[in-house]
Amino acid sequence: MKEATPQRATSELVDYFGGPASDIYFQRAHDTLAAAGIDAIVTMDYFSSGAGLACGVAEAVRLLGAVLKSGDDVSALAEGEPMAERETVLRVRAPYSRFGVYETALLGMLSSCSGWATAAREIVDAAAGKPVISYGARHIHPLVGPVMEYSAIIGGCVGCATPRGAALAGLKAPSGTMPHAMILIFGDTVTAAKAFDAHMPVEVPRIVLVDTFKDEAEESLRVADAIGNRLRGVRLDTPKERGHVTVDLVHEVRARLDQAGHKSVGIYVSGGLTAERIREFEAAKAPVDSYGVGMAIAAARPIAFTADIKEIAGKPIAKRGRIPGAAQNLRLRRVL
Amino acid sequence: MKEATPQRATSELVDYFGGPASDIYFQRAHDTLAAAGIDAIVTMDYFSSGAGLACGVAEAVRLLGAVLKSGDDVSALAEGEPMAERETVLRVRAPYSRFGVYETALLGMLSSCSGWATAAREIVDAAAGKPVISYGARHIHPLVGPVMEYSAIIGGCVGCATPRGAALAGLKAPSGTMPHAMILIFGDTVTAAKAFDAHMPVEVPRIVLVDTFKDEAEESLRVADAIGNRLRGVRLDTPKERGHVTVDLVHEVRARLDQAGHKSVGIYVSGGLTAERIREFEAAKAPVDSYGVGMAIAAARPIAFTADIKEIAGKPIAKRGRIPGAAQNLRLRRVL
Amino acid sequence: MKEATPQRATSELVDYFGGPASDIYFQRAHDTLAAAGIDAIVTMDYFSSGAGLACGVAEAVRLLGAVLKSGDDVSALAEGEPMAERETVLRVRAPYSRFGVYETALLGMLSSCSGWATAAREIVDAAAGKPVISYGARHIHPLVGPVMEYSAIIGGCVGCATPRGAALAGLKAPSGTMPHAMILIFGDTVTAAKAFDAHMPVEVPRIVLVDTFKDEAEESLRVADAIGNRLRGVRLDTPKERGHVTVDLVHEVRARLDQAGHKSVGIYVSGGLTAERIREFEAAKAPVDSYGVGMAIAAARPIAFTADIKEIAGKPIAKRGRIPGAAQNLRLRRVL
Amino acid sequence: MKEATPQRATSELVDYFGGPASDIYFQRAHDTLAAAGIDAIVTMDYFSSGAGLACGVAEAVRLLGAVLKSGDDVSALAEGEPMAERETVLRVRAPYSRFGVYETALLGMLSSCSGWATAAREIVDAAAGKPVISYGARHIHPLVGPVMEYSAIIGGCVGCATPRGAALAGLKAPSGTMPHAMILIFGDTVTAAKAFDAHMPVEVPRIVLVDTFKDEAEESLRVADAIGNRLRGVRLDTPKERGHVTVDLVHEVRARLDQAGHKSVGIYVSGGLTAERIREFEAAKAPVDSYGVGMAIAAARPIAFTADIKEIAGKPIAKRGRIPGAAQNLRLRRVL
Amino acid sequence: MKEATPQRATSELVDYFGGPASDIYFQRAHDTLAAAGIDAIVTMDYFSSGAGLACGVAEAVRLLGAVLKSGDDVSALAEGEPMAERETVLRVRAPYSRFGVYETALLGMLSSCSGWATAAREIVDAAAGKPVISYGARHIHPLVGPVMEYSAIIGGCVGCATPRGAALAGLKAPSGTMPHAMILIFGDTVTAAKAFDAHMPVEVPRIVLVDTFKDEAEESLRVADAIGNRLRGVRLDTPKERGHVTVDLVHEVRARLDQAGHKSVGIYVSGGLTAERIREFEAAKAPVDSYGVGMAIAAARPIAFTADIKEIAGKPIAKRGRIPGAAQNLRLRRVL
Amino acid sequence: MKEATPQRATSELVDYFGGPASDIYFQRAHDTLAAAGIDAIVTMDYFSSGAGLACGVAEAVRLLGAVLKSGDDVSALAEGEPMAERETVLRVRAPYSRFGVYETALLGMLSSCSGWATAAREIVDAAAGKPVISYGARHIHPLVGPVMEYSAIIGGCVGCATPRGAALAGLKAPSGTMPHAMILIFGDTVTAAKAFDAHMPVEVPRIVLVDTFKDEAEESLRVADAIGNRLRGVRLDTPKERGHVTVDLVHEVRARLDQAGHKSVGIYVSGGLTAERIREFEAAKAPVDSYGVGMAIAAARPIAFTADIKEIAGKPIAKRGRIPGAAQNLRLRRVL
Repeated sequence: MKEATPQRATSELVDYFGGPASDIYFQRAHDTLAAAGIDAIVTMDYFSSGAGLACGVAEAVRLLGAVLKSGDDVSALAEGEPMAERETVLRVRAPYSRFGVYETALLGMLSSCSGWATAAREIVDAAAGKPVISYGARHIHPLVGPVMEYSAIIGGCVGCATPRGAALAGLKAPSGTMPHAMILIFGDTVTAAKAFDAHMPVEVPRIVLVDTFKDEAEESLRVADAIGNRLRGVRLDTPKERGHVTVDLVHEVRARLDQAGHKSVGIYVSGGLTAERIREFEAAKAPVDSYGVGMAIAAARPIAFTADIKEIAGKPIAKRGRIPGAAQNLRLRRVL
Repeated sequence: MKEATPQRATSELVDYFGGPASDIYFQRAHDTLAAAGIDAIVTMDYFSSGAGLACGVAEAVRLLGAVLKSGDDVSALAEGEPMAERETVLRVRAPYSRFGVYETALLGMLSSCSGWATAAREIVDAAAGKPVISYGARHIHPLVGPVMEYSAIIGGCVGCATPRGAALAGLKAPSGTMPHAMILIFGDTVTAAKAFDAHMPVEVPRIVLVDTFKDEAEESLRVADAIGNRLRGVRLDTPKERGHVTVDLVHEVRARLDQAGHKSVGIYVSGGLTAERIREFEAAKAPVDSYGVGMAIAAARPIAFTADIKEIAGKPIAKRGRIPGAAQNLRLRRVL
Repeated sequence: MKEATPQRATSELVDYFGGPASDIYFQRAHDTLAAAGIDAIVTMDYFSSGAGLACGVAEAVRLLGAVLKSGDDVSALAEGEPMAERETVLRVRAPYSRFGVYETALLGMLSSCSGWATAAREIVDAAAGKPVISYGARHIHPLVGPVMEYSAIIGGCVGCATPRGAALAGLKAPSGTMPHAMILIFGDTVTAAKAFDAHMPVEVPRIVLVDTFKDEAEESLRVADAIGNRLRGVRLDTPKERGHVTVDLVHEVRARLDQAGHKSVGIYVSGGLTAERIREFEAAKAPVDSYGVGMAIAAARPIAFTADIKEIAGKPIAKRGRIPGAAQNLRLRRVL
Repeated sequence: MKEATPQRATSELVDYFGGPASDIYFQRAHDTLAAAGIDAIVTMDYFSSGAGLACGVAEAVRLLGAVLKSGDDVSALAEGEPMAERETVLRVRAPYSRFGVYETALLGMLSSCSGWATAAREIVDAAAGKPVISYGARHIHPLVGPVMEYSAIIGGCVGCATPRGAALAGLKAPSGTMPHAMILIFGDTVTAAKAFDAHMPVEVPRIVLVDTFKDEAEESLRVADAIGNRLRGVRLDTPKERGHVTVDLVHEVRARLDQAGHKSVGIYVSGGLTAERIREFEAAKAPVDSYGVGMAIAAARPIAFTADIKEIAGKPIAKRGRIPGAAQNLRLRRVL
Repeated sequence: MKEATPQRATSELVDYFGGPASDIYFQRAHDTLAAAGIDAIVTMDYFSSGAGLACGVAEAVRLLGAVLKSGDDVSALAEGEPMAERETVLRVRAPYSRFGVYETALLGMLSSCSGWATAAREIVDAAAGKPVISYGARHIHPLVGPVMEYSAIIGGCVGCATPRGAALAGLKAPSGTMPHAMILIFGDTVTAAKAFDAHMPVEVPRIVLVDTFKDEAEESLRVADAIGNRLRGVRLDTPKERGHVTVDLVHEVRARLDQAGHKSVGIYVSGGLTAERIREFEAAKAPVDSYGVGMAIAAARPIAFTADIKEIAGKPIAKRGRIPGAAQNLRLRRVL
Repeated sequence: MKEATPQRATSELVDYFGGPASDIYFQRAHDTLAAAGIDAIVTMDYFSSGAGLACGVAEAVRLLGAVLKSGDDVSALAEGEPMAERETVLRVRAPYSRFGVYETALLGMLSSCSGWATAAREIVDAAAGKPVISYGARHIHPLVGPVMEYSAIIGGCVGCATPRGAALAGLKAPSGTMPHAMILIFGDTVTAAKAFDAHMPVEVPRIVLVDTFKDEAEESLRVADAIGNRLRGVRLDTPKERGHVTVDLVHEVRARLDQAGHKSVGIYVSGGLTAERIREFEAAKAPVDSYGVGMAIAAARPIAFTADIKEIAGKPIAKRGRIPGAAQNLRLRRVL
């Protein structure tokens, strides 16, 4: 399958980010300054309104690399590095005319990606060492689903569900099991599981959804008996209408699988998981092997970033409310 | 300026949404069913987890239109129509093999856009008839900034800041004033305002930011005296470090402008506005002419959507926890 | 079956209540007064510390009837009548020596029974007209289980589970379905249901527990198919470990039964029900046919009663903190 | 005085607990299984829904001892031993037909008695070593008043007010002072105290209620002057209408008694005491000699117990939501 | 008794308020302006930070009358009139040099007195028509005790305890009963009451404190029997250590007085009363005849006032944050 | 300037405190006792209802010194010493007739002054070593403004604004800057600052208010440039209408002053400061040099004091609710 936009056409994207996707007032500032014959080498600091993980820095630097010139200067925190509230994450020193119109795009990359990565980190910390998979692309617009998944992996998730997200993050392959739709069409979980086992490449782990038709405990045993030792695990995804997956259900399924001799079958839990709920599972020592998380990462609130001119022609300046001059930040490293 | 992706290349986007941006398990389901030689005409319902405004429906229908065939059947609520919790917003009756892999994209469009439109509606209601401009594109990833602005306008905003957002929403032009950066480079607000006035096309309204260097009340008078009756308004955007714009500030600036004979100069307020804060302004009868809102719309939480197979080959079915059969919804209209 | 104590031996119970089960200080008061040669005709008021339903009055009057003499005077509210906070529910005018030692028993009957009846009434009100069965005898000591059930019926329940409770309340028969233990011993719900159907007298309604082995929706259909139109209903009693019965489960089971043609099969809900949860079911229009309630009635807090001498030899008196003289209460009726 | 039912007629009680006081569905299960010719040796675990003190075990074992046979097996925690949430407190391995109908009685004994003992323990802990007397029999039905008092003593109280409660707990005698009624009939506290002193056996401690007619401090001095060194203590029982006994009142009465030379007269406090209020007295170092507690123990909520079959014919089994097989509990000891 | 300062020496007080009691920066402003040869006719508005009753206006106007000259202009709300938040209560138009140094005194009078009057009004409203006496002078410095009492009467109290407070408010005489100290010295309440009755002028109402030595109910009857129909009332002032006066105590004392034929003896309640507690008494229909209030009025928080120059030489002006020009207030009346 | 009452005429004040400013019931007690020919040497304890700093003791002792005689005995805590809840702060042993009528004045001095000193101490503690100036005299009645300031200094403030307050506290001079009124009359802050600098004595520190006309940061730089190194500091007093002084404003003004070479110019913060807000400034390491506090000290709630007779003629006594006899307090020292 040939890969489509938006990831392919970089020069088109640069034009897009600096024009149709940019706030019009930046264009107007650009035109006014040009008409007045004014430009200046400015130092602009991009800083966060809250603490978290800095993410989107790499993409921002790539965009700046496409529009700045030799002699301009960009320094930044590393992708995924912790950032403090109001800490400068990115600093550009260049003629304003070269990059002013990209402020919308640069801030947006940092805000969204840092929001996702920070939320993922909280989830990953809650899981206390157990692997977390991001699978929330279906909760946000598909133009940014893979970007969200990339950010989740920066935040510590070990896998994600979209191929493009996995590629952005440098993973070998996306992760995933099967949708309820497939089981419904087969009409029986065991039938579906056998077909999946028969036709999927060997490297795809056999993890079967067990809440579609029958009680999870009963279905887990049926599937385990049918697939045998090729079964990597069962996925518990009990819907909200049935009270979501409970700690007790995990304990019970584990016990029933063990009593039936299926000690090597893992238990994968998903369905409305949050950091809070994962902490409850861990506090209760629920025998979960892996957590799948959707909304709690995908719907993370962006962390607002601000860009401020702090020097013009080497002289400290700032708007009211901000301190003039580029604040010292020894963690910034020169990247362009 | 030539307009870039992602809006241009529709067929590439369809491929992208059905492949790299799709959750891998939908592809696996597709391949398993194909290998097993199974397909079925299914009725799939897409319903919301919460009440609000349905948005993203138009884009979703466009995507379905590109992949379904004659004889398939799609019905939906209208774009921007109110939706109840769990109400079916979109219904597709077609062979599963034709559209199963687009579930990630379809749900994502509905989730993000409905979240933005619903948040915009709350803000617009709070403003009690005063115009609200969305200008939060810089708070989210630039691939979706214009989509967010489109959704904000569906929700009731009268303007937005990106050209592409305005185009998507069918507006003549984007809205915007000027950035602090431009004023800082000019070194004085009045100088900047005069240059803006001299060089901008006549149809661009003269609205000047007045919190960059001086007290807002003082600067408002300086600008009004300098630009005269071409001045449409002043924008109060006091930063959080100075306590944001207060109700009292608006009253005072209004009084001072009036006392100086500038009764026709409007007051535009922005800076960390939320529905709650706007309600406070309106309750206190603050003489605001227009509100500019960023994060409160752009960072709106997506409203999760779910897609469920409810019939297979005309027979009611559902997974555990859901009621089999397509629920009657008289508000759905046939769109494909 | 021959009925055992404590209900049989009335005269023994009177002795028991006035001696071993009485607080020793009443006996000491009796002995001191007797040794001092003092007695007096007193008016003693028994009043409640809280509003609710007066219950236990009938049993208290029976006890007084066994110990008072002609010329003594007892008036009371009717069994099950509403009582206000601090309202006099029972009034005795008699020589203190005749009934002083029964104060522990009289107060105890009123306190426990009023607590149970009042809790039952709240539950019954929550159920908004749907029948409520009390089946909580197993949560309290078996000496008072039937007394609790009698009180629950005074409070508005239409049935209870113990034969003695039903007899006390004048019901034809106790209500009940079957325990999980029986199904576990049969090893399958349908097998158990068939045996129950085969061996139980015709007047026992066929209501089958459907959460023992399989998902409730699946099991409901299996049972309904097996028992046919003799099936009165299914009982949903999902354990806490699976999130209790949810509103959605009831809707789904109803829909699936209806779709399979079992419209006449009722749905009986139990398991940790409280007034609060029943109100949620009713607010969501859950298609419940009857509620079974245990702890929420059986564990009701007793409503403390106090007995105060208000007149001695016709003269108003009271201890500090109370108002001397028998308060007028037009609702009291002479009963002895 | 000859002791009455229910404590006398053990075999009648066994019949009563297994029949009229038993939930009818256990009888129906028994009859269905018998008619179907089915029985099985089951292992049934009785476990608590909450942590606390296990109480009622002794009575439950006595009942089982009356119905099981040689070769059956019962193990249990010791009476009064701490139990964890969901810990198995009692385990029976026997043919189901022998003891199934007693489930209502067995659970009820454990639930009520554990509730009372656990509440008593919290009170006793609050009193920080000072003796606590249970005198709340008058707040609950007289059939179980003595059982409650027995449980309170298991929980750590040093005395109770009913003779039967004291006997069940192995105490030499019940505890108690005098009722307000007696003082009202005498018409003066000092007169009543003198009569009590004159006529009560020497082993009854002289403790006098001092809030009936006069201010507690004044009455305490009058009584102490009248009874002299035979006075063991005064009981402060100020009614709610006068704000209950306060910490300051205890300090003041102590000081006034001491100043008048009555240093050996103790102060006994009662009236609406709870663990919370006792903690306040102790935190304020109130010179209380003993606490009398009623409702806070008598109205304790029962701790629900559940009985589950965990093995049938030696094979692990469980209903949905529970883990099959008898959980290991090294604290259980064989008792039958 | 000859009346002492501070009320006598008006011209000394004017000097004191404009010098030693004035904030030094007003003196410095005065000296700087004088040295610079600058003065101006200013309009100064004195407005409140909160809603309530305007009080202290009369005293402020008296002070201005002593320092302003003919041609100057003062307008104000009436003493005791309701004022809105930020409403101008006092307006002075005069040369700044004549009254600038009195700003500390003028604001202070308005702030303290308005605070007291506003608190009194809330109490009076709570009492729902029953008379309220202010007797809290002993809770604040004696230089302002009478000023507080004056303000309390402006707020609606019908009496106060200090002679000077009564005189300021134009009352014929102060109100008061007797202190505990007097009763303690007499050694018995009845003895003290008789002496009071024997020696006080006939116009002093006979109201006797009844909580010094004995229970209030008992002492009320003793006093009523001793003083007979000259007894106007009993005062219940139960200390905090005994739980303050309760609603029940008032009901009981009323009932016992009535039963003893003392229906004309009133009940006066005091001791830690607040608006909240008085509302509880009234809600419970406690038969109180009059409330005595101390801390709840005396400790009222002052309502901060601000003085702002709004015009200089007839031209609107204001400091940042305030609206230039004297706000129209039709309720202001010319007073000087 | 000649200093006025109330501080001058001591003997007049004694008469005033014992007559017009005294609660009338003390006079009535005095007259009744005199008419009955009764007097007694009493020990009266004055104790506080709450913990804090004892203040007003010195003034109270001066008053007692003016009315007691040789042989009478007064002991007290030291002025400004910490006091516990209910601790005796002042003890008088003397014939009641000599000092009974001064109870209102004595309690009032202790209550108000201790309230102010205690509030000041909390503020001073919050400031963590930075100097705090009391300048709230304008928020309370001018008769007690200087007494409040004296108390604030006892509580730890280093300066106050009224000359009389400073004198009472033994300070060399009051503290203060300039009012907004002066700047408004000059029409420009720099003009006003220059006049102030030109005309004020050299010992008056040059601290200039910088929020009257312009943004604080801009005005600070203008003033610093104009006054040069004679400028001690700028005072930030941003009004509530502009959000009060924020932590960020202080940081920014400090940075801008430093960048302009004005490192020695201090920053003085005022305007609605409370202990809570000062703790936030200190937690954020705001570079504040001194805090000015008004309402938070001036409006402090008085701490109620009570006076109780504890001995009469050497014999312990007390009213109901209090413990007879003078409580031992080793911290009391004989002062008269």
